[in-house]
Amino acid sequence: MLDRLLLGQTEEGELARPPRLVEAMRYAALSGGKRLRPGLMLAAARLFGRDDDGVLVAAAALECIHCYSLVHDDLPAMDDDDLRRGRPTVHRAFDEATAILAGDALLTLAFDLVADPRVHAEACVRLAASRDLARAAGIGGMAGGQMLDLAAEHSTLGETEIRLLQSMKTGALIRYAARTGARLADASVEDIARLTRFGEVIGLAFQLADDLLDVEGDAAALGKAAGKDAAAGKATLVALKGTAWTRAELGRLVAEAETLLAAFGERAASLAALARFVAARDR
Amino acid sequence: MLDRLLLGQTEEGELARPPRLVEAMRYAALSGGKRLRPGLMLAAARLFGRDDDGVLVAAAALECIHCYSLVHDDLPAMDDDDLRRGRPTVHRAFDEATAILAGDALLTLAFDLVADPRVHAEACVRLAASRDLARAAGIGGMAGGQMLDLAAEHSTLGETEIRLLQSMKTGALIRYAARTGARLADASVEDIARLTRFGEVIGLAFQLADDLLDVEGDAAALGKAAGKDAAAGKATLVALKGTAWTRAELGRLVAEAETLLAAFGERAASLAALARFVAARDR
Repeated sequence: MLDRLLLGQTEEGELARPPRLVEAMRYAALSGGKRLRPGLMLAAARLFGRDDDGVLVAAAALECIHCYSLVHDDLPAMDDDDLRRGRPTVHRAFDEATAILAGDALLTLAFDLVADPRVHAEACVRLAASRDLARAAGIGGMAGGQMLDLAAEHSTLGETEIRLLQSMKTGALIRYAARTGARLADASVEDIARLTRFGEVIGLAFQLADDLLDVEGDAAALGKAAGKDAAAGKATLVALKGTAWTRAELGRLVAEAETLLAAFGERAASLAALARFVAARDR
Repeated sequence: MLDRLLLGQTEEGELARPPRLVEAMRYAALSGGKRLRPGLMLAAARLFGRDDDGVLVAAAALECIHCYSLVHDDLPAMDDDDLRRGRPTVHRAFDEATAILAGDALLTLAFDLVADPRVHAEACVRLAASRDLARAAGIGGMAGGQMLDLAAEHSTLGETEIRLLQSMKTGALIRYAARTGARLADASVEDIARLTRFGEVIGLAFQLADDLLDVEGDAAALGKAAGKDAAAGKATLVALKGTAWTRAELGRLVAEAETLLAAFGERAASLAALARFVAARDR
């Protein structure tokens, strides 16, 4: 779907699309990856009986935001990474200016996609999904979290600050995924709140698993260098509290996720599997 | 208004705002400048009888997009500028990583602001303004235009290609300003089309005046270096067709702008003044 959306015909009223920029956007967005965020949104929508192309369009918007953030985070002035998903990063495969613009254009495209009429019949629901996305991705969410992360390389953070940083940098978009899936499927206010919390729990588990992988993981399976966090002096809960505590905390989070899903019975099997995958993943 | 919006209290549901990132965003967005785009939107809305804070919120969103593009365009990997509006550029005053993130966060903030209920009572009108903004700023608009502009430094463009590039890089947002002012004031379909064309004409005039200034302007008044386009080998209509042709074309565009406004009589005086200012500006 993201493939088709990025390949799509130029619609009436739109202007030309520079081929090299399209190519860099496709390279950034269609290079595999776990697709955790769109997968979570689709599973959350299915839980409430919605399973059509419209949710895919919203999921593609979310993936555009995630992929733009990877492109910009990899830049020399940021994390300076050469490798992503086992391939050269965008600024390595193209050049720095193209990487900056491809990130900008993916971020912008997300707000075109989420406004697509297929996403939901009611404009006010699409608008809420759009504004929520801006907040999850912006200064109070992902972009602000990346700023805190860069600053953390030069200071020592406590548990509260690390949790805030992670809830912004990676938590906000994952929370958005689960919450928005429920919203687009017209779930009740209570169920949207339940899925929002489920997304928060998944976000916490994802980050802890990520930090563990950086300590114990295998660079070949990861498709990127391991041990980078410690080398960069990045603050993580693993570094602060150790691997045994982190494994126990992951177990507790999976249990909370399963409790949140209990009310839905068998229908929630794929969301429960996703929670276990996030906690146990090896890449 | 942009000042208050960037200073604003953290709303419920939003996360923390890293102070250094807020500072860089404010530095980028509140450093003066002509405020052409928001001014045009406000004047277009006033023409159809709307003059309240809600239009200001949409105008602030548009200015966020414009200012983010300046921050990213000034980066070392792009135009590599040290000076903007007579002050150090954001990456000079802060650092490159902060400049990239401040641009990203301003771009994202725009889609939060344009969804604000004050912008228009109907969600579908706000959503249309949001999607239009994404298209004006994205791969088929400003970001795509910047990509073409970078590529143009290594090639020779003809008149058609230069016009396409400029309609995307600077034209799309200026067109959006006039069009959206009319839309937010519930103008008729015909009047929205008229203002859309007015915005296109202003965009063309703005770019020609900009190119003339680069050839003939004074760096002190500009607040940035003059003669950069020629030095960088950038394609402009002034370089292709000469200053006499450019001045004549500017006169023709101002005449077309005035013709478009004629139906509105005295009410359109401030829009007509804006058109003349754009064509005759010295900075």
